[in-house]
Amino acid sequence: MQPPAVALGLRLRVLSESAQASAAQVIPDSPVGDHRDPVAVSRFAAGCDVVTFDHEHVPGSLLERLVEDGETVRPGPAALRFAQDKLAMRRRLTDLDLPCPRWRRVHTWDDVVAFGAELAAGRPEIYGTGSGPDAGMLVLKTPRGGYDGKGVLVLDPGAGDQDDAVVARRWLDDAGPEGLLAEERVAFTRELAVLVARSPSGQAAAWPVVESTQRDGVCREVIAPAPGLDGELAARATQIGLRIAGELGVIGVMAVEMFEVPSPSGPQVLVNELAMRPHNSGHWTIDGAVTSQFEQHLRAVLDLPLGDPHPRSRWSVMVNVLGGDHPDLYRSYLHVMARDPGVKVHMYGKDVRPGRKVGHVTVCGDDLDDCLRRARHAADFIRGDIDE
Amino acid sequence: MQPPAVALGLRLRVLSESAQASAAQVIPDSPVGDHRDPVAVSRFAAGCDVVTFDHEHVPGSLLERLVEDGETVRPGPAALRFAQDKLAMRRRLTDLDLPCPRWRRVHTWDDVVAFGAELAAGRPEIYGTGSGPDAGMLVLKTPRGGYDGKGVLVLDPGAGDQDDAVVARRWLDDAGPEGLLAEERVAFTRELAVLVARSPSGQAAAWPVVESTQRDGVCREVIAPAPGLDGELAARATQIGLRIAGELGVIGVMAVEMFEVPSPSGPQVLVNELAMRPHNSGHWTIDGAVTSQFEQHLRAVLDLPLGDPHPRSRWSVMVNVLGGDHPDLYRSYLHVMARDPGVKVHMYGKDVRPGRKVGHVTVCGDDLDDCLRRARHAADFIRGDIDE
Repeated sequence: MQPPAVALGLRLRVLSESAQASAAQVIPDSPVGDHRDPVAVSRFAAGCDVVTFDHEHVPGSLLERLVEDGETVRPGPAALRFAQDKLAMRRRLTDLDLPCPRWRRVHTWDDVVAFGAELAAGRPEIYGTGSGPDAGMLVLKTPRGGYDGKGVLVLDPGAGDQDDAVVARRWLDDAGPEGLLAEERVAFTRELAVLVARSPSGQAAAWPVVESTQRDGVCREVIAPAPGLDGELAARATQIGLRIAGELGVIGVMAVEMFEVPSPSGPQVLVNELAMRPHNSGHWTIDGAVTSQFEQHLRAVLDLPLGDPHPRSRWSVMVNVLGGDHPDLYRSYLHVMARDPGVKVHMYGKDVRPGRKVGHVTVCGDDLDDCLRRARHAADFIRGDIDE
Repeated sequence: MQPPAVALGLRLRVLSESAQASAAQVIPDSPVGDHRDPVAVSRFAAGCDVVTFDHEHVPGSLLERLVEDGETVRPGPAALRFAQDKLAMRRRLTDLDLPCPRWRRVHTWDDVVAFGAELAAGRPEIYGTGSGPDAGMLVLKTPRGGYDGKGVLVLDPGAGDQDDAVVARRWLDDAGPEGLLAEERVAFTRELAVLVARSPSGQAAAWPVVESTQRDGVCREVIAPAPGLDGELAARATQIGLRIAGELGVIGVMAVEMFEVPSPSGPQVLVNELAMRPHNSGHWTIDGAVTSQFEQHLRAVLDLPLGDPHPRSRWSVMVNVLGGDHPDLYRSYLHVMARDPGVKVHMYGKDVRPGRKVGHVTVCGDDLDDCLRRARHAADFIRGDIDE
């Protein structure tokens, strides 16, 4: 958020986990403290006009106390809860009659097996009369604290795999009385994401719906707008995003990750996850939209009028740079810059660890295949997967 | 330069005139010190890989000592000299046979009067056979330290105005043995600027030639690209910019301000001033080009491959926000944002003083008149000149 803060003449303060953290490297006012420590957070917040987030892991109870103390917290804890607690999110979205995967709160392995048997019966209105390749398979999720594929376990409880059962039982034991969220494993065509922003005055804006590609639970690539997306479905997906933001009272940027499924009555979407902050699926907006998600988040939480979310190019392709074998990314990005002067390189100032998101690249243009080829090449090259 | 440094994962350190300076507000590593103090500058430079500038006022002797001490200074003092000393610049450009206004080093009022008489004889190859409206008028400039109309005096020595003579004599006395630069007052059609970047390896890139409008010696507005500019003249102007960068050994971004003059053989350009740093005439590139002048400057001084300077929109209009009567710009920019979500607002975190450049706005789009109207309105509104 620092670049748009610089442009808008806003001063950021960040509560940083360490003096070496990415944000602390670029923001002068960066006290170090634990976001779970009420004293550190209160002291930090006392010097701020508005408190907001770049992750959702600040405990809700702590945020509620901040609000009681008169601090302005955006998004507020009542909204943020639905990005922190996947069970609460599923319950709320189901109450709102929004399309979700089938889900169940589970406490025991028997619960899991019973839910898996229900899933195996199929869902004809979504998947048609065949039961689909993933029928009966489910995804077990810790309601809190998971991200980037962490806290997610894919199971086929009907297959009688004892290893699966052992791991699942351990997760269930660890979960305690809250239990776990079990969801059907959706046989999706692809994953989409809707990025919206909402301000305290209720003004809202949405970027075009994007297609995102995950590998091993980690976002690898985002194409904006989602290629070939049916116009009506795009409108419906956007409406779902805006409705969630309004109903949940979200302030700031929210990403709604969705599955596109090929139902007998035409393509539909099911809501997968919510993130209430600038999100990986919106990094393309830095280079590809009139207003980036980071600028929009600042505008929203400060109750400034929202900016224009229109794309600036026909296509934008964002590819994450994951840590690979090369600890020094700077040598390789020199080659990337030399080969393709139009690629926008973003490095986060993080130490390289295998699989860690350490940066991303964006390419904007009129030709999607060209953008894809260039962005993928740049990311692979920086990571060290290729050397030509 | 902080936003592109954040993106590229580069760490900036700035030697700041005060802890409240714009750059110090947004860059964590900002020691306070005087850029004319050799000890402060040496201590500062010792922690840097490359030293560069956001103004040209660091004394050349001090920079030469840095280079002797083994520091990497880009642009180097030998090049920077031509942006610091207008007499040296005129001499060098004349040696290179580059088109300049007629000029003379002057020491006395008699020198000024004699030069004015020469000017009055006209310059047919530029202005045609008529002597032109400004024939005989000249501009007296302090060779060093002037900017934004400071250090510039417009005179008509043939008119016998005693006030002019008194002021000019005082300037000449203050100038000492170095003297002053006297230049013809060019009867230009409009002002243009060429922005180029050059890296130590000799790679160079140029943005499209822009039109800039000054009022009271201060840049008010920039249109990119310069509307209706003859293609051949654009190419010639760009060649002049690139040639100056190469001949002078410039590293980093350089702006070449030019006058467009309607000569009998078709429009021509005369070089007005050089700036060796990101420049007001290039602020439009932040929002309007694939690579901004600030990113390009960082790439150039670090000898990274240069980025693509192509515009991202058909038109970009940048209008400076000058300090007006309203000390609080934030109230008005709220209204600007509400009225026009597509305007890009840039505020510099400076205290408002009348006439001071405190920010700028940029509007990009396909319709020049629309961009102009919107950008001018936003700037006037923020300044407080209008309230609707």
